[in-house]
Amino acid sequence: MKNTFGSSVAVTIFGESHGNMIGAVLDGLASGIDVDENFIASQMELRKSVGALSTARREADEVKIVSGVFNGKTTGTPITLIIENKDTRSKDYGELAYKARPGHADYTAQMKYHGFQDFRGGGHFSGRITAGLVASGAIAIKALRKKGIYIGTHILSCAGIRDRDFSDIAEDINRINNLDFAVLDENSGQAMTEKIADARRDGDSVGGRLETAVIGFPSGVGEPWFDTIEGVLAHILFSVPAVKGVEFGDGFELAEKYGSTANDAYFSENGNVYTKTNHSGGILGGITNGMPIVFRTAIKPTPSIYKEQDTIDLNTMQETKLQIKGRHDPAIIHRARVVIDSVTALVLCDQLALRYGTDWLAE
Amino acid sequence: MKNTFGSSVAVTIFGESHGNMIGAVLDGLASGIDVDENFIASQMELRKSVGALSTARREADEVKIVSGVFNGKTTGTPITLIIENKDTRSKDYGELAYKARPGHADYTAQMKYHGFQDFRGGGHFSGRITAGLVASGAIAIKALRKKGIYIGTHILSCAGIRDRDFSDIAEDINRINNLDFAVLDENSGQAMTEKIADARRDGDSVGGRLETAVIGFPSGVGEPWFDTIEGVLAHILFSVPAVKGVEFGDGFELAEKYGSTANDAYFSENGNVYTKTNHSGGILGGITNGMPIVFRTAIKPTPSIYKEQDTIDLNTMQETKLQIKGRHDPAIIHRARVVIDSVTALVLCDQLALRYGTDWLAE
Amino acid sequence: MKNTFGSSVAVTIFGESHGNMIGAVLDGLASGIDVDENFIASQMELRKSVGALSTARREADEVKIVSGVFNGKTTGTPITLIIENKDTRSKDYGELAYKARPGHADYTAQMKYHGFQDFRGGGHFSGRITAGLVASGAIAIKALRKKGIYIGTHILSCAGIRDRDFSDIAEDINRINNLDFAVLDENSGQAMTEKIADARRDGDSVGGRLETAVIGFPSGVGEPWFDTIEGVLAHILFSVPAVKGVEFGDGFELAEKYGSTANDAYFSENGNVYTKTNHSGGILGGITNGMPIVFRTAIKPTPSIYKEQDTIDLNTMQETKLQIKGRHDPAIIHRARVVIDSVTALVLCDQLALRYGTDWLAE
Amino acid sequence: MKNTFGSSVAVTIFGESHGNMIGAVLDGLASGIDVDENFIASQMELRKSVGALSTARREADEVKIVSGVFNGKTTGTPITLIIENKDTRSKDYGELAYKARPGHADYTAQMKYHGFQDFRGGGHFSGRITAGLVASGAIAIKALRKKGIYIGTHILSCAGIRDRDFSDIAEDINRINNLDFAVLDENSGQAMTEKIADARRDGDSVGGRLETAVIGFPSGVGEPWFDTIEGVLAHILFSVPAVKGVEFGDGFELAEKYGSTANDAYFSENGNVYTKTNHSGGILGGITNGMPIVFRTAIKPTPSIYKEQDTIDLNTMQETKLQIKGRHDPAIIHRARVVIDSVTALVLCDQLALRYGTDWLAE
Repeated sequence: MKNTFGSSVAVTIFGESHGNMIGAVLDGLASGIDVDENFIASQMELRKSVGALSTARREADEVKIVSGVFNGKTTGTPITLIIENKDTRSKDYGELAYKARPGHADYTAQMKYHGFQDFRGGGHFSGRITAGLVASGAIAIKALRKKGIYIGTHILSCAGIRDRDFSDIAEDINRINNLDFAVLDENSGQAMTEKIADARRDGDSVGGRLETAVIGFPSGVGEPWFDTIEGVLAHILFSVPAVKGVEFGDGFELAEKYGSTANDAYFSENGNVYTKTNHSGGILGGITNGMPIVFRTAIKPTPSIYKEQDTIDLNTMQETKLQIKGRHDPAIIHRARVVIDSVTALVLCDQLALRYGTDWLAE
Repeated sequence: MKNTFGSSVAVTIFGESHGNMIGAVLDGLASGIDVDENFIASQMELRKSVGALSTARREADEVKIVSGVFNGKTTGTPITLIIENKDTRSKDYGELAYKARPGHADYTAQMKYHGFQDFRGGGHFSGRITAGLVASGAIAIKALRKKGIYIGTHILSCAGIRDRDFSDIAEDINRINNLDFAVLDENSGQAMTEKIADARRDGDSVGGRLETAVIGFPSGVGEPWFDTIEGVLAHILFSVPAVKGVEFGDGFELAEKYGSTANDAYFSENGNVYTKTNHSGGILGGITNGMPIVFRTAIKPTPSIYKEQDTIDLNTMQETKLQIKGRHDPAIIHRARVVIDSVTALVLCDQLALRYGTDWLAE
Repeated sequence: MKNTFGSSVAVTIFGESHGNMIGAVLDGLASGIDVDENFIASQMELRKSVGALSTARREADEVKIVSGVFNGKTTGTPITLIIENKDTRSKDYGELAYKARPGHADYTAQMKYHGFQDFRGGGHFSGRITAGLVASGAIAIKALRKKGIYIGTHILSCAGIRDRDFSDIAEDINRINNLDFAVLDENSGQAMTEKIADARRDGDSVGGRLETAVIGFPSGVGEPWFDTIEGVLAHILFSVPAVKGVEFGDGFELAEKYGSTANDAYFSENGNVYTKTNHSGGILGGITNGMPIVFRTAIKPTPSIYKEQDTIDLNTMQETKLQIKGRHDPAIIHRARVVIDSVTALVLCDQLALRYGTDWLAE
Repeated sequence: MKNTFGSSVAVTIFGESHGNMIGAVLDGLASGIDVDENFIASQMELRKSVGALSTARREADEVKIVSGVFNGKTTGTPITLIIENKDTRSKDYGELAYKARPGHADYTAQMKYHGFQDFRGGGHFSGRITAGLVASGAIAIKALRKKGIYIGTHILSCAGIRDRDFSDIAEDINRINNLDFAVLDENSGQAMTEKIADARRDGDSVGGRLETAVIGFPSGVGEPWFDTIEGVLAHILFSVPAVKGVEFGDGFELAEKYGSTANDAYFSENGNVYTKTNHSGGILGGITNGMPIVFRTAIKPTPSIYKEQDTIDLNTMQETKLQIKGRHDPAIIHRARVVIDSVTALVLCDQLALRYGTDWLAE
């Protein structure tokens, strides 16, 4: 449903890049869950731009909780988080008001909203809207941790540079969650940031792949049809701007394997069942098997580049040229990673509440 | 929602591999749409196994429409399609009744349903359940064609062999929709079937990648958040058994590109707007842009193989060995392709009904 | 959503009065719940017509479970129940094929489905479609009983005759659930059936009010907004044909009281909290308080009467006269009662699964 | 779904009586609809208390639109309306912090939220939360008017005084929409306000019945099952605080009639079809027939009264006495009326968008 996602635990997002405020309503979370405003603030920091890789716009992005939290804990009723847009001084948008930026949603917005959309800074299509997901997701991430469930995402590859694979996932998750630029291998990270700096110099941009792991998640959650864990996660992941691919476990590589190497053999230890490998990414038949949930997302390069591009005028639908000015991110992959964690946490909280009841998360 | 998917047009599926019958309820389709039972039957044929690649089980798979169609046309009320399971003679399932087949959902089903699941032939997890999707999807596919919207899927790669890319998509769609083994390049197809035959000989199995294109779909359909076209398609695609990855446009490859090569430049011709390339797969900001919708799905190799595998006993959760007997498909990718087309058609009918109203599809 | 209702536990119904078969898919019920086919059959009997009050059509209404039940217990996957329409010999519908019966949905069906609807016997609008609700509801009713939750409905009034109020609700529920014509006071029942017989003689029909009570339902279930217990129950109750009003507790009478007499004072006994009165019908702020849930539904008189009526021709939309022939029920209130129980049980199972998790009902 | 209601057009509400702010997110409304802030303000005035009937709390209730409106028109993306709670000075709630007020949701909130709920002023259960519904509903009401659809609600009865019935509905709707205290007959209104003043003097409270009519609504909208117009309207109506009954057309009275007087005969005039009477309230088989939609809601008396009441202590669950102090409304029925109009408008916009597509309302 449009701007609301989830069933037992649901999030609604709103706002435009240059409007008054953006935010989210997080509904259905159990009552009695601690809300840590410092943690929310630190997650918001991760979503913001970093050093040399940053945009000019530096919002405070202060999250204000205006409902659903009482005495520092969730009440069980909707939690509303708002973030004022401060850096929205009126300005002349010039040709961006009517020229469709290639790779952006300007043209499709026009076809859907017939010119009534707020075009300023991408309006409701702006990556800025993910701030509401990060703020609400932070509460979900904290709640999951209390139940022993941890999520972490690293930049698996960027501009041709590849990070190392997950090894000790628990340790790796802990490591990357403390980093601004989330890579497991420091050298790879260094090489990536150099490539990003190069792209900036060239007036170009890069994308990359993110890899996410979830540990501590119980088995037996998810549905065989339609609401598979893969399906519900992919549904929300594809609304994170720039995501163009989602794969679970070995994903597209798995498709090239033989069954004899693709199957995950079982073993048991102290009464618990595990698989020797995890090609399936912790999900079989749409249902979790207790192994780490692992997936990767493809992040396309930021479409705002400085080279002149062929485009059309949205008023006349005639051809024209566009040269984007101003300062833009040459990469958003390092910022997208906390958005991925956040939507993952929101989906998992929903799945757990559906499976074990609305109070389970607070028990 | 579990076994129901869709909003304005929704499908509900039911049944188990060795139960009485399987089927689907297709609800919300406009009244007055032609229902072509021959076309349904021919789509069911595509879903069945083909020649040397086939399983022993050869059901007639006769689709009986028991509601929602009157005088050959949809009434607007639920269309129920049932398919009797004929080849379900009672037999001894032996160790398959309690040993988890690696790569299958036996273990996760046990964790979710606590031993009450129908284990015979995979029960509700069986690929056989897709027959209901194909039967209902056939009605949707036909309805879309009448509106000038065509869907086609080919086997992009299988066992290391790659098909050629789409070139003239309209022509290519037409070509593959008449093939049992849907490849654009005959030689590639020949090589793939040989590889599949090899895998069969080795008691092994293969997977592959499918590529789907949709043409004639209007622009301006989809949502910027949550119900992006990518998100809703991926949601249902991931419940097609064996799908472990979904990517739109250039997908994971796009993630490795620079913005300057990733953006699709616009041009206009006779008052219509097009993009020169289609790296985004016809979707920007979650909304269609009128270009072909293109996506790829990763199909993991069939998990039923003949080599001995390490597994666990579901009753004791202790380690054991499993050697699967009987005849099983060494590949299902050529059969999965019509399932992908079907669920795609169902999702697109829903999106169109939401956008243009419930009657549009019949107008 | 059209023909599907519920969230964690959902029912989908299908079929037309004179089609091939009708039925229901019950999805999301916990695995391991006993399915008592005899009980289903006895509930189906209650839905059928009784003695002198009956219609000519006497279907066997044999319910066949074709999925979701294995070894007598729910598997956790969709339970499909089908009922063949046996008494549907082809006949000439004459003027009923194109004249709108006043009080029926013929005209509104025409406006919605443009003439493609199955008009025979009311098609998908027929009260016969409730058979699927009763069949699936029977499984829900039994499951609730195992958790100590009992539902019962009596005919509170019919044709000016009033039944006595509930007194010992547990005993009263038990009593009426064993009656074909569910009244608490035998004499009232006798008087009602006489009035119904009179109406039949006059070629007329009667309606009435049903009163339902639920005991043993836990407190703390429901939502303050939108998904109030009243709201979700009313939502499904209004789709039971002929229902035109729903009130909880003292309902419309409560509206005429003063606060000092309307409020239910609390008391506690052995650590449990109760209210001295139950004007609110067991629900406050949309949430159950542990007291009996009590509501009443208004059933309008059966619209099929034998007097000549002014109507319109659906083809020409011009005025015409209609005289309905054949045999029709002079009352359906005694048959509607089991439908009310059934949909109530379905809604309550859904609410409990949402609150306590998907497995709770089977624990 | 909890605090979100609707499908194509959906509203999400949030906030607590004494929290920071309350509000609503209205999602899915077509782009290009005029947003009249003055009209929103005037609807908010209707929701506030009136003269001698008022509470002490007099909020400005200024609605601030923070997203989804650009240049005075809807953008098509979520419209967020916020209302700051100004009159929430910290104070000692005394025994109201732990004693359950009879007739209020204090006890059920405790059972659901385990003491974490915001108890101040009823928290999320407060009638104040309806302000978000009125603000968003005002946009819907205006949009409907532009399409020729008008909604009006009058106080049919209050404290034993009865207003006259609707006669010329169009004129009557126009009349009551300009009144603070919405009655068709001025004398009845005078008598009602006197009764309310009496109740106030006695430390007591009254309820009443509201009657709503909608004209200009097209035929053929709604569903035969589950999403009947009655069902979806009742669903949301029952979440309006104090509503305990909903009936359509003649409702409970219809249940007492004979078929021969209950059926609405058809006639045609200038090619249009009408019914001579409107006992069914404009809905047959769940679908509109083009006649006025008419329904009544039962509003229970405000539970806050000044007489001492028996209750329980929420901490100990032991019996205690409660004497509510401060100033409270002796009636809310005259304020509830605009809430009823608002939720009706929201539901109807959703139904129209589902039927005719997302853009219809702005065409």
